[in-house]
Amino acid sequence: MSKINIGLFGFGVVGNGLYEVLQKTPGLNATIKKVCIKNPLKKRTLDSSFFTTDRNELLLNAYINVIVELIDDADAAFEIVKTAMQQGKSVVSANKKMIAAHFKELKQLQRLHKVSFLYEASCCASIPIIRNLEEYYDTDLLNSISGIINGSTNYILSRIFHKGLNFSEALLEAQQLGFAERNPSLDIEGHDAANKLSILTAHAFGTVIKPVEILYSGITQVTKSDAKRALEKNQVIKLMAHTRRLRNNKLAVFILPQFIDESNEFYQVNNEFNAVVTESVFADKHLLIGKGAGAYPTAAAVLSDIAALRHGYKYEYKKKGKNEPSISHNYFLDVFVSADEAGKICEKDFESVESSYTGKNTFQLTGIIQAEKLFADRWWQQPGVSLINQGNVLLEQIEYDRLSKRSLQLAGEEL
Amino acid sequence: MSKINIGLFGFGVVGNGLYEVLQKTPGLNATIKKVCIKNPLKKRTLDSSFFTTDRNELLLNAYINVIVELIDDADAAFEIVKTAMQQGKSVVSANKKMIAAHFKELKQLQRLHKVSFLYEASCCASIPIIRNLEEYYDTDLLNSISGIINGSTNYILSRIFHKGLNFSEALLEAQQLGFAERNPSLDIEGHDAANKLSILTAHAFGTVIKPVEILYSGITQVTKSDAKRALEKNQVIKLMAHTRRLRNNKLAVFILPQFIDESNEFYQVNNEFNAVVTESVFADKHLLIGKGAGAYPTAAAVLSDIAALRHGYKYEYKKKGKNEPSISHNYFLDVFVSADEAGKICEKDFESVESSYTGKNTFQLTGIIQAEKLFADRWWQQPGVSLINQGNVLLEQIEYDRLSKRSLQLAGEEL
Repeated sequence: MSKINIGLFGFGVVGNGLYEVLQKTPGLNATIKKVCIKNPLKKRTLDSSFFTTDRNELLLNAYINVIVELIDDADAAFEIVKTAMQQGKSVVSANKKMIAAHFKELKQLQRLHKVSFLYEASCCASIPIIRNLEEYYDTDLLNSISGIINGSTNYILSRIFHKGLNFSEALLEAQQLGFAERNPSLDIEGHDAANKLSILTAHAFGTVIKPVEILYSGITQVTKSDAKRALEKNQVIKLMAHTRRLRNNKLAVFILPQFIDESNEFYQVNNEFNAVVTESVFADKHLLIGKGAGAYPTAAAVLSDIAALRHGYKYEYKKKGKNEPSISHNYFLDVFVSADEAGKICEKDFESVESSYTGKNTFQLTGIIQAEKLFADRWWQQPGVSLINQGNVLLEQIEYDRLSKRSLQLAGEEL
Repeated sequence: MSKINIGLFGFGVVGNGLYEVLQKTPGLNATIKKVCIKNPLKKRTLDSSFFTTDRNELLLNAYINVIVELIDDADAAFEIVKTAMQQGKSVVSANKKMIAAHFKELKQLQRLHKVSFLYEASCCASIPIIRNLEEYYDTDLLNSISGIINGSTNYILSRIFHKGLNFSEALLEAQQLGFAERNPSLDIEGHDAANKLSILTAHAFGTVIKPVEILYSGITQVTKSDAKRALEKNQVIKLMAHTRRLRNNKLAVFILPQFIDESNEFYQVNNEFNAVVTESVFADKHLLIGKGAGAYPTAAAVLSDIAALRHGYKYEYKKKGKNEPSISHNYFLDVFVSADEAGKICEKDFESVESSYTGKNTFQLTGIIQAEKLFADRWWQQPGVSLINQGNVLLEQIEYDRLSKRSLQLAGEEL
């Protein structure tokens, strides 16, 4: 592909960023030919002839060979991307929700129509994590991928912990800076992180899971007293995503707010920065940090995909079909829960209780609980309850030891 | 390339590691067919039929399609690599000294013989930095690449600062753990880092420079009192490599011991870990951390190159020939120097002196000096003198302001 003629869907923060970035990289020989927008009345910085509301002006235009899809609506995005591929066009997208929801179908469409579908910007914006998972960790045996993969919530939590803002002040700031959507529920309820973790898990382990299969929550239930508890111990709270290979080769996949010590590598990752740690048998531990939100960092990732199209680059999904591990909730977490009423904490679900505290309108408990139970019974997501992961590491080994001491016949359990 | 038949040169720490790693990744369909070694009398873990001392048994063997070169001797390595490419074989190497010394010739050989020559393991071992510079930062406008790129010296400095060892104890430990060579001068005198920075600069900016063109030193002259000074300020000393684009589009390229604050991202990068920060216009700042020495981490990078050969991957050296910036020493550094004799410090070379201290057998000075003067006159590398970079950032801006205030006619100078 010597010349890249782009049909762009969406001209929001990232779309605008991409336009500017392409202006500054003439060497790439890539130009936006036409932009399809939803609202023709909105004031634009560019000439109106540049815009259309008719998607077919892009999708059925033989001159346009690459579609870049940067709209919010995941359903509309899927239709656009699907039609583009059917028309033999390569596609670049940043729409994690759409990609996570249609992963297998999108993979088939690429194969069927012999086109590329790239989406580096969908996960951790500027961090080239998908490409590295595809290429570098192709041969190494990955044991885990974990990190801060949502820039909005990390920004909000950073402002709460480091500037003493309250939740709504921090959220407003994040929105004003373009790090959070006007409707922030995708971010703050953890859905966005779940979409990303679904994509990352597919590229890291070959395992395609729907976001709803993941044990996850967001940061809406983190309370002031949780923050106080963290600060007293020189900790912060971060929304941490994990996919970890268990001893039985199944995958634990979860996203929960987590207490983070000062010595932890994620402690210093603040504001809109994201961070990913991979652990593999040979290369050992890698840490990648970069901006996970914002117009230019996201546009930079879109740009790297556009550049890769020049060479006909395709994801190969090499790990799929090679005994990829399945997801399991049969592992244990060490958690802290607090509630405004004692009855809201389901103590009987816990394997063991380490400590409990009863105050006036405050009930707290720390203990070990099986992920399966958290997944099945959502008492911890009621209003007035918060649940925070206390440990960095899954309790496979500890649980294994404990259980095997307790009862030998349990030693055969999946751990 | 469906089946990879490897001829391996060298069976030291990394060669052994690669053998083991390949045993554990049968899916790669890559096998070591023969190993060429120097000393046939050395006891080996594998059957003697596996080894030869005749390089032609590998180089002229049509069945072997990939040569992996992991020997110490840079001259012998170049002959091997050159012959292999002439024979139409693709080559993977970790020999930074050889690559830095013959960069242009090696690039021509690849083109002439239409083969791949990959060397991810030559820089920062397990960190996939070369591949990312080639692919991801292809389109973004890089402003700098900097970091800790020598695992041995970082290990030694970490043990001195965090365990209170003295230099020779720390060096011995590093050697015993396989992080430093028996002849450690390549590492501790900074030559190894200069070789790597030469390679990284070529892939980051397209600028091919010889290591001798770089302003560099190692850690042999760092004194106990330097360490004490750092610790008193809650700092450590790290050997930091920098390539930074100056305002005039030239490159400042230097490697010096540097005081690092607790708040600096490199502060926590200890032992054999390496770390690289890239700064670019769109993606902004990226930090990559991973193991920079050791058998498995290095073998993991070699393995990723071998895997890439299956797809005919080649470095494209895309930035070469596109107005690549030239190296310049016309910038300013803020340094701390100490000496055991006052006369050893060349005070007249300084633009300005910020502070000076005279004690019994201790003479110290902090001030601003032009890199050109440090490059031209090596008084600071005499025995008894140590020089440590005080600042993370080049003083372009400050110097620019200062000079333009001082004299308008100087404003046209390169800064």
